[in-house]
Amino acid sequence: MPELCPCPKVHEDIVNEIIRVNDELAQLKDLDAILDRVLTRARKVTRADAGTIYLVEDGRLRFSYVHNDTLFTSSVNKEVYANFSMPMNDDSIVGYAAGHRELIAIDDAYDMPADSPVRFNPAFDIKTGYRTRSILTFPITTSQGSVVGVIQIINAKDDNGESVPFSEEARHYLPLFATTASVAIERAIMTRELILRMIQMAELRDPSETGAHVQRVGAYSAEIYHQWALNKGVPEHELKKFKDHIRIAAMLHDVGKVGISDAILKKPAKLDPDEFATMQFHTVFGAKLFTNSTSELDAMSGEIALRHHEKWNGNGYPGRVSDLHGTVKSLGQPLSGKAIPLAARICALADVFDALSSRRTYKPPWPDEKIITVIKEDSGTHFDPDVVESFLSIWDVVTAIREKFTENLPEDERPNPQDDAAKKVAEDIERKRVSKD
Amino acid sequence: MPELCPCPKVHEDIVNEIIRVNDELAQLKDLDAILDRVLTRARKVTRADAGTIYLVEDGRLRFSYVHNDTLFTSSVNKEVYANFSMPMNDDSIVGYAAGHRELIAIDDAYDMPADSPVRFNPAFDIKTGYRTRSILTFPITTSQGSVVGVIQIINAKDDNGESVPFSEEARHYLPLFATTASVAIERAIMTRELILRMIQMAELRDPSETGAHVQRVGAYSAEIYHQWALNKGVPEHELKKFKDHIRIAAMLHDVGKVGISDAILKKPAKLDPDEFATMQFHTVFGAKLFTNSTSELDAMSGEIALRHHEKWNGNGYPGRVSDLHGTVKSLGQPLSGKAIPLAARICALADVFDALSSRRTYKPPWPDEKIITVIKEDSGTHFDPDVVESFLSIWDVVTAIREKFTENLPEDERPNPQDDAAKKVAEDIERKRVSKD
Repeated sequence: MPELCPCPKVHEDIVNEIIRVNDELAQLKDLDAILDRVLTRARKVTRADAGTIYLVEDGRLRFSYVHNDTLFTSSVNKEVYANFSMPMNDDSIVGYAAGHRELIAIDDAYDMPADSPVRFNPAFDIKTGYRTRSILTFPITTSQGSVVGVIQIINAKDDNGESVPFSEEARHYLPLFATTASVAIERAIMTRELILRMIQMAELRDPSETGAHVQRVGAYSAEIYHQWALNKGVPEHELKKFKDHIRIAAMLHDVGKVGISDAILKKPAKLDPDEFATMQFHTVFGAKLFTNSTSELDAMSGEIALRHHEKWNGNGYPGRVSDLHGTVKSLGQPLSGKAIPLAARICALADVFDALSSRRTYKPPWPDEKIITVIKEDSGTHFDPDVVESFLSIWDVVTAIREKFTENLPEDERPNPQDDAAKKVAEDIERKRVSKD
Repeated sequence: MPELCPCPKVHEDIVNEIIRVNDELAQLKDLDAILDRVLTRARKVTRADAGTIYLVEDGRLRFSYVHNDTLFTSSVNKEVYANFSMPMNDDSIVGYAAGHRELIAIDDAYDMPADSPVRFNPAFDIKTGYRTRSILTFPITTSQGSVVGVIQIINAKDDNGESVPFSEEARHYLPLFATTASVAIERAIMTRELILRMIQMAELRDPSETGAHVQRVGAYSAEIYHQWALNKGVPEHELKKFKDHIRIAAMLHDVGKVGISDAILKKPAKLDPDEFATMQFHTVFGAKLFTNSTSELDAMSGEIALRHHEKWNGNGYPGRVSDLHGTVKSLGQPLSGKAIPLAARICALADVFDALSSRRTYKPPWPDEKIITVIKEDSGTHFDPDVVESFLSIWDVVTAIREKFTENLPEDERPNPQDDAAKKVAEDIERKRVSKD
């Protein structure tokens, strides 16, 4: 047992800080939510303006999360879905930090000592007009010494908001913090793998239930919610928790299909009315998977599974299911409007959008213009108008998500993110969003 | 940011100790493995002879893990599967600690101050002949303040092995440790819930795949392995890791059945040879679920899913499957003997034992005597003889597991753990085990 420190107040500060961060991270389930919190924490102690996290994947450093208070006008932004990786070698600062397991502190990126082992790459600054000064880069290692990723934080600020070098204390404290973060990140990766494995089980029966499809529906739902919550002025703590949950819960919206018989699930033709009535029970089967738990995430997963086919005007299903614990023989009257849980209203739109913009055996991907027209027409009938508004106003984020999670289709079969009509719509609403945010 | 302590060596000891324990717990996936490590750690700093963990479940304190170096002659013991809970009120010391969120230190259970708010219940000592002296009981709370459970450690030892009161340092340090433990315990509960949800998905298609069945197969496999590893002199670190993994991996042995068509999976009669050949592919479907990950747990889950129908004499299936990533058209030559991975050899026995001792639509549970006879006959043909020997030598543990994880059957349909022949066999081999351990 370690001896007690003779100055108990001070050591308790550090111990309590680490326990608190650890516990704060433990509240979060989703990997993106954890990376967001890790960056927030790492930046907070030094008031750093920007930061990026790279995670090790197949021996490379994959770009995984980013903050930039100067460049990003909204906290809903497409940059977190950027899709690239870099080798773990000395050609980049993050590659060097990962390869050598070293903290690298740079006081001014444009005035580096001649003997520095690393070189600053100004490409990002040139492209964006950003001015990088101080940089602190450190590996995220487990206490076994394996490297999970790299955190890079940029432009520490003084009391006047001026960029200054990172302090000695930051250089001492942040690596301790990185070890705590590594535990949370590894746990979140395992959770995501387990969720994707449930999806793979569903995919064994219904090949349209792919990992890429559910990752898109999860990400669309998370970002639509984020914009909706900004529009509604939801407090940040509640916003972050709901966003953490909805990304996972929306991924699981169709797992109940496992309970539907092959004759119906795999029928190559249109379902007849009786078959369709049976198919509707996938919502109830899915919800039943989440009834035994008391966690908020499971409660939301159950709501989404049960109600992602409800419609705003009350013409959806399955309506009130009085007792999920018994054998359900028939579905009740559908819900309408705000009686449908928010998470289900959001996932309904995300799921329909993804179906329209994806190739199915019976249809090609629709052009974006046609999809947007249909979704606008269905606002207030099928979909919650506020949810549709939030969706349309983050069109740039939606297309970034679609580009990131693809099914490895041949290039010419992918939906075209440059579709002109869609771009115009996006520009229109981007203007509105920036003025509102 | 907390200020740096003026005596850096000492504060670093505490910070590093907490980070180390946190990270050590993060390596473990399974709840039982985590409770075992938490108890080991809590006891180690005080050299306590015994300890128990209770976890909050439905508003009660459920007995969840126990150590007792004096009473338990083997580290494979049935006591960890004891099945009881107690109310969270002042009638017990653990109930008081949980209800009031207080650490309770008792120097001598048989000489307590008159004004103590709690009473010591000597029932356990009377039943077992154990002599409880010092007791330290403290709640496991999250930093949000919710109570996850209670740890009770008993009989701190001095350098001569005499029971002594718990030190001031222990009273100060252990509650810090409990917060770290709470994070690991909550994570493990979530992991177990996710695994059971995969099982529920399988159960939607095949009602014999129940949560109770897979929890039994997981626990049988873990304990058979533990005894096997003691017999073989496997180093403790390796033993604990393998045991952690096999409990989860064995629970997932049949998830590939989700990929089998209804016509075969739900056929009420015996399968014809073609259907049986198709059914065998559930092993490959299951293994495919685990091919994309590099974790050791997933590697074992894949091995078990693929090879739990192999037989020691080479008459099982599916044999060498050269490329799990492609479309598998046929199964290769089966493996035999030690070419079959150990985890699969163990799970094969656990799964067959559980099928024989459970009611199925086509058969009642077999009497234990008949099961033991068959398993002994099949040792060296169907089953690895060393695995059979380990299984038979922990018969008391096996029956405790069977009693803990039941399907809520009416009392008269449950297998009878008091079956005389089985008891006799168990006694015979218990003698052998004690002399070997």
